[in-house]
Amino acid sequence: MTRYQRLATLLAQRIEQGLYQAGERLPSVRSLSAEHGVSISTVQQAYSLLEEKQLIAAQPRSGYFVARQGVTPPLPPITRPVQRPVEITQWDAVMDLLTARLDADVLPLGSGTPNIDASTLKPLWKIIGRLAHQQDPRLLNYDNLYGVPELREQIARLMIDSGCRTTADDIVVTTGCHEALSVSIRATCQPGDIIAVESPAFHGTMQILRGFGIRVIEIPTDPQSGISLEALELAFEQWPIKAVVVVPNCNNPLGFIMPAARKQALLTLAQRFDAAIIEDDVYGELAFDYPRPITIKSLDIDGRVLLCSSFSKTLAPGLRVGWVAPGRYFDRVLHMKYISTGSTATQTQMAVAAFIRQGHYQPHLRRMRHYYQRNLETFTCRVRHHFPCGICVTRPQGGFLIWVELPEPFDAYRLNENLRRSGIQIAVGSLFSAAGKYRNCLRLSYAHAFTDKTERALAILGTALKKAVLSCSSLVERSQHQEREEGRASLKEND
Amino acid sequence: MTRYQRLATLLAQRIEQGLYQAGERLPSVRSLSAEHGVSISTVQQAYSLLEEKQLIAAQPRSGYFVARQGVTPPLPPITRPVQRPVEITQWDAVMDLLTARLDADVLPLGSGTPNIDASTLKPLWKIIGRLAHQQDPRLLNYDNLYGVPELREQIARLMIDSGCRTTADDIVVTTGCHEALSVSIRATCQPGDIIAVESPAFHGTMQILRGFGIRVIEIPTDPQSGISLEALELAFEQWPIKAVVVVPNCNNPLGFIMPAARKQALLTLAQRFDAAIIEDDVYGELAFDYPRPITIKSLDIDGRVLLCSSFSKTLAPGLRVGWVAPGRYFDRVLHMKYISTGSTATQTQMAVAAFIRQGHYQPHLRRMRHYYQRNLETFTCRVRHHFPCGICVTRPQGGFLIWVELPEPFDAYRLNENLRRSGIQIAVGSLFSAAGKYRNCLRLSYAHAFTDKTERALAILGTALKKAVLSCSSLVERSQHQEREEGRASLKEND
Ligand SMILES: Cc1ncc(COP(=O)(O)O)c(C=O)c1O
Ligand SMILES: Cc1ncc(COP(=O)(O)O)c(C=O)c1O
Repeated sequence: MTRYQRLATLLAQRIEQGLYQAGERLPSVRSLSAEHGVSISTVQQAYSLLEEKQLIAAQPRSGYFVARQGVTPPLPPITRPVQRPVEITQWDAVMDLLTARLDADVLPLGSGTPNIDASTLKPLWKIIGRLAHQQDPRLLNYDNLYGVPELREQIARLMIDSGCRTTADDIVVTTGCHEALSVSIRATCQPGDIIAVESPAFHGTMQILRGFGIRVIEIPTDPQSGISLEALELAFEQWPIKAVVVVPNCNNPLGFIMPAARKQALLTLAQRFDAAIIEDDVYGELAFDYPRPITIKSLDIDGRVLLCSSFSKTLAPGLRVGWVAPGRYFDRVLHMKYISTGSTATQTQMAVAAFIRQGHYQPHLRRMRHYYQRNLETFTCRVRHHFPCGICVTRPQGGFLIWVELPEPFDAYRLNENLRRSGIQIAVGSLFSAAGKYRNCLRLSYAHAFTDKTERALAILGTALKKAVLSCSSLVERSQHQEREEGRASLKEND
Repeated sequence: MTRYQRLATLLAQRIEQGLYQAGERLPSVRSLSAEHGVSISTVQQAYSLLEEKQLIAAQPRSGYFVARQGVTPPLPPITRPVQRPVEITQWDAVMDLLTARLDADVLPLGSGTPNIDASTLKPLWKIIGRLAHQQDPRLLNYDNLYGVPELREQIARLMIDSGCRTTADDIVVTTGCHEALSVSIRATCQPGDIIAVESPAFHGTMQILRGFGIRVIEIPTDPQSGISLEALELAFEQWPIKAVVVVPNCNNPLGFIMPAARKQALLTLAQRFDAAIIEDDVYGELAFDYPRPITIKSLDIDGRVLLCSSFSKTLAPGLRVGWVAPGRYFDRVLHMKYISTGSTATQTQMAVAAFIRQGHYQPHLRRMRHYYQRNLETFTCRVRHHFPCGICVTRPQGGFLIWVELPEPFDAYRLNENLRRSGIQIAVGSLFSAAGKYRNCLRLSYAHAFTDKTERALAILGTALKKAVLSCSSLVERSQHQEREEGRASLKEND
C-alpha cells in the first residue's frame, strides 16, 4: 500500500465511523498534509481516490465534502397533468424570469442561460472582428430568406451526428429556436387547434401556443423516458390533435433522453393519427454521453417532423441563430418565416458558419458537455447536503437544468418571492404547465461555475425548503385531520 | 458675358433650334473644348450652368444629355381598388422578388434594398470590430426583451425629430421593421378581423396580414397626398375595421409624404371609430426636405398609434434592427415579441447604438438624402427619355422608389418574365394589392449608382414599354371595336 492509499483508507474509516458527517467539509489539503506529515500531492492523490469511489465530492474553490450515500433523492414520479385541452396563462411569471436573468444583484438559479465563459468560445470574437475588418458587403445586406448557404451547409453536416441525412436545402435559418418553434407551430396549426405537449413543457413553447390561440393538451411525462405514449394514444383517440411538441433530448425541464425505441414509437403514433411532430433539439448536442442521441427527425420517412434548434445553448444565445428543418412543411414555414422577421441577420450567421468550419465547434461542445456534467455532480452533491428528505430530484442526462419536486401543497411561487429578498431567483414549476400545475416544483440551473455564492444560495434555498416541507407535512396532517373530522361529522349527520 | 456664359448661350440656342434633340447626348467636354478653343473648365462651367437651368442633365460616367422639357410624365391618378375586404395571395411573386435581389447576374431594379456603399457607413465596421475586440459578454447573452437600453435611448432621441416625445421605456426593439409590423398587427387584431391599408401597399405588410388570416380592405390612395380620408370614412362606416396600416412618410411604393393636416385628420378618424393606427415610418428619415416630416405618432394623445420602423433603409438591412413604439398596446406587443423571436440579437443593437452615439448617424443620413435625391433627378431624366408617352410616373418626396403606371390591359407580370432574359428585374405592381390589382404598374428603385448598366436597362425597359403601350392601345381599340360589334349584334337580336 502506498502512502496516499494508506491516507485514503484512514479517511474512509473516519467517514464510516461518522467522524466526518455526510455533507460536511473535509480538512483542507494543507492541514491534512501538516497533520499526517505527508506531501500536498499525497493528500491530493488520496482525495482523488476517494472522489473516484464517490465517497467524497470536490467543489471548485470550496474544497472537498463528504458525499451523502444512500440518500440520493428519488426521481419524481410520472406527471399527472389535466387530461383535457386548456388555455395557457402565466405570462407575468415568464416576464419575471426573463427580467431576473439580467439583474446583476440576483443569482438567477432559475434561468436557462448557458455558460459563455469557456475559452473554447474565444475564437468567435476573433472571427467577428475579422469579418468586420473584411467589410464584406453581404453582412450589411438582406440575406436570402433561407439563410446564409455556408451556415446551412454546416448545420446539415452537424445534423449527421443525430442520424439525419439532411441537406442545406432542407434547412431554414431562424432568429433563435424561438422563431423556429413559432413558425413551425403556425405552419402546422390554425388558431383553435389542439397541440399535445410534454408535461411539464418549456414555458417559451407554452407562450407561443398561447399567442396563436392554440389549445394545449398536457401529456403525462416520465422523468426518465419522456412523454407517455399510452397517454398520448388515448389523447389522440379523444381529441383532433394536429401536432405534438416534444424536447426528446436533454429535456427542458426534466433532463431525460427519450430512448430510441420510444422515439420510433412516438413517430409511428403520429403517423397513425396523421399529426406533425415539432421536435425541439436545442439541448441535444449537450448530452453527456457521446455520440449524441438520435433525433426523431432521423427516423422520419414522410416529412412530418419539423426539427427546431439553435446555437443558443451550445454557443451563445445573444447570437440569435437557430434553424428549422421543416420536412414537408418547408414552403409554409418559409412563408411564416418571411412574415415573422423577413431574412435573418447576416453577420452572426457568417460568424457561426466560420466558427464551425474552422473546427472550433466540436472542441467547444466537448468541453461544455464535460463542464456541465462535472457541475451536475457538484450541484447534486450540495443539493443532497442542503435539501430536506421528502423531495424528488431529476437525474439529467445532458444540458444544465434540474427539476425539484416537493410535497403537494408546497408553493414555489411564494418561495420565489421570499428568496428574491436574498437575491436568489428560481424558476417556478407552474411556468411549465398550461393549466398552472407544478406549483410545488422548481427548476434550477447548474450552468454556471459553482461558487461560494451558489453554495450560500443552495443553503438558503435548503433552509426554506426544509421549513416548507415541515409546514407541508403539517398542512397535509392538518388537512387529513380535517378530513377525518369532517368524515366523523358526516357520519354523525347520517346517524 | 464671360467665356463660359457665351458658350452656354450658344449651346442653349442649338438645343432650342433642335440641333441637339431632347434626350440626345451632348458632345463630350473634351471635343467641345477643341471645337471652341476654350479650356476644359470653361466647358464644364457652361454645362453646369445649363444643368442648373434644367436644360441638360448630367449622368455619372455617361456625360450630358438634353433634358426633355414639357414632357414630364403625369402623376398616376388616385387609385381605385376593390371596395371590400379580400384575402391576400401573391406569395410566389414576392419570393421571386426576394430571390432576384441576390442573383448577381440580375439588375434588381425592383428591389427595395438601400445603397450601402457610402463612406459615411464605414465607421460601423470599425465599431463592430471594436465590440468584438472588447469581448463584452453582454454581446453573447440573451438581451432583455425590450432591447438594449443604450439603443432605446438613442432611438427615443431620434424620434424627437419627427415630433415625438417618446422615452426609451416606450420602445421595444425588434428584428427589423418586419417584426415590428408583425407584432403590432397581432397585438391589435385577431384572425378574421379587418384591417384597412393604403392601395397600393408594401407587399411585406400584405403577406403578414395574410399569414395571420386578417382580411384587408384597400383604400384609394392619392400619389401626392396619401390615403383617401373620404374613402376610409366610408369603409369605417361599412366595416368593423380594427386598425389602419399606413406608410405616411416617403410611402412605399408611391413616394408621397402625407400633409400634416391629413395626418391629423386620419388620427381623428381613427379615434372616432376607435381603431388603432399602425404607422410604418421606415423611410421617414429619408425625406428629401429637412427637417423631416412629422409622424402621426407625434400627434397621438391616447396611445392608439403603434409606430414601426427600422435602420434597414437608413443604415443597412442585414443588421435586422428595428423598433416599435406601441403606445397603449405595449404589453401585448411585448408578449408577441417574446413568442416571435425571444430577445433580439445583442451585438447589432450595440453597434447601431454606438454608431448613433458617436455622431455618425446624422451625417450619413444627410449624405443619403442628397444621394437619393440626385439619383432621382438622373433617373427621372432618363425615364423621360426612354419611356413612351401615355404612362404616369410618381414624384417621390423621399426614399428611393418610383411607381410607373401603364394603360390598363398592360401586363407587368409578363414584362418581368421577358426582361429576366436580359438580366433585369422589376417589381410587379400586383404585389402591392391584396386583390391582385396594379398588374399594369411597376415599381423601380433608384437607390443605386446610375451606371451604364442602368442606362441600358432603362433603354431595354423603355423599348418593351413602348411596344406594350402600342399593343395596349391596339388592344383597347380592338376591344372597343368588339364591343361595338357585339352591340350591333344584340341590337339585331332585339329586332
Ligand atoms: C427547450 C427550449 N427550446 C427553445 C428555447 C429557445 O431557444 P432560443 O434562445 O434559441 O430561442 C429554449 C431556451 O430557453 C429552450 O429551453
Ligand atoms: C414600407 C416598408 N416597411 C417595412 C419594410 C421592412 O423593413 P425591415 O427590413 O426592417 O424588416 C420595408 C422593406 O422592404 C418597407 O418597404
